Amino acid sequence: MTRRMKCVIAYDGTDFSGYQVQPGKRTVQGELEGVLKRMHKGSDVRVAASGRTDAGVHAYGQVIHFDTPLALSPEQWKKALNAQLPDDIAVRSVDEADSTFHARFSAKAKEYRYNVWTAAERDVFRRYYCAWHPYPLHIDAMNEALGLLKGTHDFTSFCSAKTAMEDRVRTIYHAEIEADGPMLQFRFIGTGFLYNMVRIIVGTVLEVGQGKRPPADIKSLLAAKDRRLAGPTAPAEGLYLWHVYYDRESFDHK
Amino acid sequence: MTRRMKCVIAYDGTDFSGYQVQPGKRTVQGELEGVLKRMHKGSDVRVAASGRTDAGVHAYGQVIHFDTPLALSPEQWKKALNAQLPDDIAVRSVDEADSTFHARFSAKAKEYRYNVWTAAERDVFRRYYCAWHPYPLHIDAMNEALGLLKGTHDFTSFCSAKTAMEDRVRTIYHAEIEADGPMLQFRFIGTGFLYNMVRIIVGTVLEVGQGKRPPADIKSLLAAKDRRLAGPTAPAEGLYLWHVYYDRESFDHK
Repeated sequence: MTRRMKCVIAYDGTDFSGYQVQPGKRTVQGELEGVLKRMHKGSDVRVAASGRTDAGVHAYGQVIHFDTPLALSPEQWKKALNAQLPDDIAVRSVDEADSTFHARFSAKAKEYRYNVWTAAERDVFRRYYCAWHPYPLHIDAMNEALGLLKGTHDFTSFCSAKTAMEDRVRTIYHAEIEADGPMLQFRFIGTGFLYNMVRIIVGTVLEVGQGKRPPADIKSLLAAKDRRLAGPTAPAEGLYLWHVYYDRESFDHK
Repeated sequence: MTRRMKCVIAYDGTDFSGYQVQPGKRTVQGELEGVLKRMHKGSDVRVAASGRTDAGVHAYGQVIHFDTPLALSPEQWKKALNAQLPDDIAVRSVDEADSTFHARFSAKAKEYRYNVWTAAERDVFRRYYCAWHPYPLHIDAMNEALGLLKGTHDFTSFCSAKTAMEDRVRTIYHAEIEADGPMLQFRFIGTGFLYNMVRIIVGTVLEVGQGKRPPADIKSLLAAKDRRLAGPTAPAEGLYLWHVYYDRESFDHK
């Protein structure tokens, strides 16, 4: 009998060439499939994830699934995987899922967070885990800009120009900043995010925070559908895939 | 005119073979002296520190000094050094010091901190910055053991057997644990610490916390003066040289 196992995993993206397998590169998917192949005596086991993450991007709550004939309990799977995975990937939980569950296609929404360290001083212990942006920022103006991004919009101005032709309409449910001293954390929940979308939003909203643009620019940027008019792509190291929601209830009331 | 500059520096010890220069190895002192040599047009500038740190050990408040004929202000020094140092060393402050000041010999006390992550779950983002010890711990018993270490003692049982023959009497002023959820932080202030002393104390006190030893063991260990009787040396990645005190007042009343 084949079982479908669903895992929530965390990884430190620093030493990976992103999530997705690429020949000759160290990737999260490559490490996962390598361990599963050993556990299945050399048979390939394909891992499906909720989505890719780029080089240097972290995950606290990436979700993957795979099918297996092995009769291990979820707790045994968690132990076995954690014992064999490298130190920069951790399996946080394992559950047996329905055969109709799919890590990507069953997802109802995703949460991303982006950390910005705003102190004048560089923090050597955070250099791989935050973007460093040592400039005075108007948090209220930034939250106003983020408010204008909420709702259903065509986000063409906020995705990489390399994005393949596709529907660029997405819905953002939550977009806020939590400040804890010099550490800012952007929090986004939405139906899905286009390539580089969170990083371009953060790069643009930081320009608002520095007074380089008014918050109302967001409206004209959304209307213009032109990536060149938005701000720079914020660096990978601040970004975390935080949570994948498979149930509307769980994020509607957040 | 020669000026003596005092700097407070932070470094992430992960990618260094310790503080002190060693041929062919990447060290903190080597990076500092390399930058200073370039700034002095090829002349060697010797850097003195409050003390060494081992491979993998971090510093938040290491103190160094050096002598220079360059007429830069402290603020200019800070900028110039931070611009040239690698990302894992940061200069937090620079002051011009009296010519009698010495980073090591003027120190009155040092503060070390040691981070232990006690959750059942590995945290991929903390793996270089904490020791992971996923066992239930009795914090009260640990604080009782730490209390017995305070005062003036011969710490032979708590230093590496490789320590050169010398006076092993030291005074510990403060030794406590701060708990913040699953994160424990040991805090020590003392006149000085022998080789591996903080890590052996932590390794021994964790055994007390697990119920492997009673807190009163500390008394017999101090009396025995035998390293073999104490607990294991806790790993380097949890340890931080936190602060160097050059003024008794500043730590007496902490």
